[in-house]
Amino acid sequence: MCELLGMSANVPTDICFSFTGLMQRGGKTGPHRDGWGIAFYEGRGCRTFHDPAPSAESEIARLVQRYAIKSRIVISHIRRANRGRVCLENTHPFSRELWGRPWTFAHNGQLRGVKRLPLGGYRPIGSTDSEHAFCWLLGRIRARFPDPPRQSARLWRHIHTLSQELNERGVFNFLLSDAHYLYAHCSTELSWLTRRAPFGQARLTDADMTVDFQQETTPNDVVTVIATRPLTANEAWTVMTPGVMTLFGAGAAVATFGG
Amino acid sequence: MCELLGMSANVPTDICFSFTGLMQRGGKTGPHRDGWGIAFYEGRGCRTFHDPAPSAESEIARLVQRYAIKSRIVISHIRRANRGRVCLENTHPFSRELWGRPWTFAHNGQLRGVKRLPLGGYRPIGSTDSEHAFCWLLGRIRARFPDPPRQSARLWRHIHTLSQELNERGVFNFLLSDAHYLYAHCSTELSWLTRRAPFGQARLTDADMTVDFQQETTPNDVVTVIATRPLTANEAWTVMTPGVMTLFGAGAAVATFGG
Repeated sequence: MCELLGMSANVPTDICFSFTGLMQRGGKTGPHRDGWGIAFYEGRGCRTFHDPAPSAESEIARLVQRYAIKSRIVISHIRRANRGRVCLENTHPFSRELWGRPWTFAHNGQLRGVKRLPLGGYRPIGSTDSEHAFCWLLGRIRARFPDPPRQSARLWRHIHTLSQELNERGVFNFLLSDAHYLYAHCSTELSWLTRRAPFGQARLTDADMTVDFQQETTPNDVVTVIATRPLTANEAWTVMTPGVMTLFGAGAAVATFGG
Repeated sequence: MCELLGMSANVPTDICFSFTGLMQRGGKTGPHRDGWGIAFYEGRGCRTFHDPAPSAESEIARLVQRYAIKSRIVISHIRRANRGRVCLENTHPFSRELWGRPWTFAHNGQLRGVKRLPLGGYRPIGSTDSEHAFCWLLGRIRARFPDPPRQSARLWRHIHTLSQELNERGVFNFLLSDAHYLYAHCSTELSWLTRRAPFGQARLTDADMTVDFQQETTPNDVVTVIATRPLTANEAWTVMTPGVMTLFGAGAAVATFGG
């Protein structure tokens, strides 16, 4: 199993605090020693950092913690390998371009027989079930919508339908972004929390670290954090219902599908 | 204009020395202040670092210099913007997947009217001529070879033909990798150097730094470095002829096309 971390914000925001919590679970407070990765959306672009080394000991993870990259959408993942060996190409999040937009995907769970699903134009580079599922998903989206549909809700519903199809094969908690929205699908375990004014203090569960968000934010900031398990002990996280996909945009939940 | 740096090696090798030289040209000894990027192939995967900030001042560039990532193929680029504003999505190298392999591309030059070329399945995320040219190139390769050809030389010749077609539109110095080989195309300016035993000392032109490669290598290592302009003053670089594409594999020049 693995752990997921996502962020949606209405203004470019750093994720240093939550990322610090997650990284502890990569070999320190948690057993997720088999690499980690993070994708930051900035403007139309996206940059990713990947490391097959345990996050708690990773030089690159320390850089990401220290160097506050500001982003509106972030997807991160720490891995405990079940399928696919520990190497760079098996490290989430995975990225592909569709419609001239960078899409990224990170998955927690296992899917039976997913590699038998026929692929369209996207092919996996590594050997994980997760990347195969992502390639299948994007291929299906592209087959249905060679160009982005005018009504975004058509795309959202299609992604939810495809998610349900994959979910029947096992455990399919995921975070996905199309560069505009963040899609969070709960198969078994996923929680989220929206922070907005009045901001308070937050205390990490996994590290001795407290942040007073009032010092760090402006009154108009809206930021949602999504994680496999809540990262703070003193805030009210929403625990998602299995089968539900929630769509986040500009820091807030925009729509919910299923459940 | 921009500067390119590439490496091909027969064993995973770090590029710290050459990268240190290049980074000086990003705002210190050279005017290439508009961002930089680097792609490292590791196993079947590839990781990239991008920063729209000047390389001479970049926190991420310092990490890459310090943290010796070992790779068989590296492509790096420092940018002086002519077309396309300074932002993450316009920062080279660009990456796309084809045949389940990560392809990367970095370009030095300008191409007239390249954005009028019709694209296949790959679309640019940013607004540079370079990314459009890369998408066109990959789309054409995929149209001709939906699967990789058995005879690699057919692919190489096709890439050279496509390069000549683009070269007619202006200046098209580039580095390209299909995860197996490194393709270096000289339109106006590109040089390379192969280091092998007996190794000697190398002295950077752009920074006060000397490396004794005998201390850093084994007798079987073969490493080629490719750069817009030679990075060292005391070694014999091969200055490429305009119109020539040289293919590098496992550290050495494998084939030459055109010229």
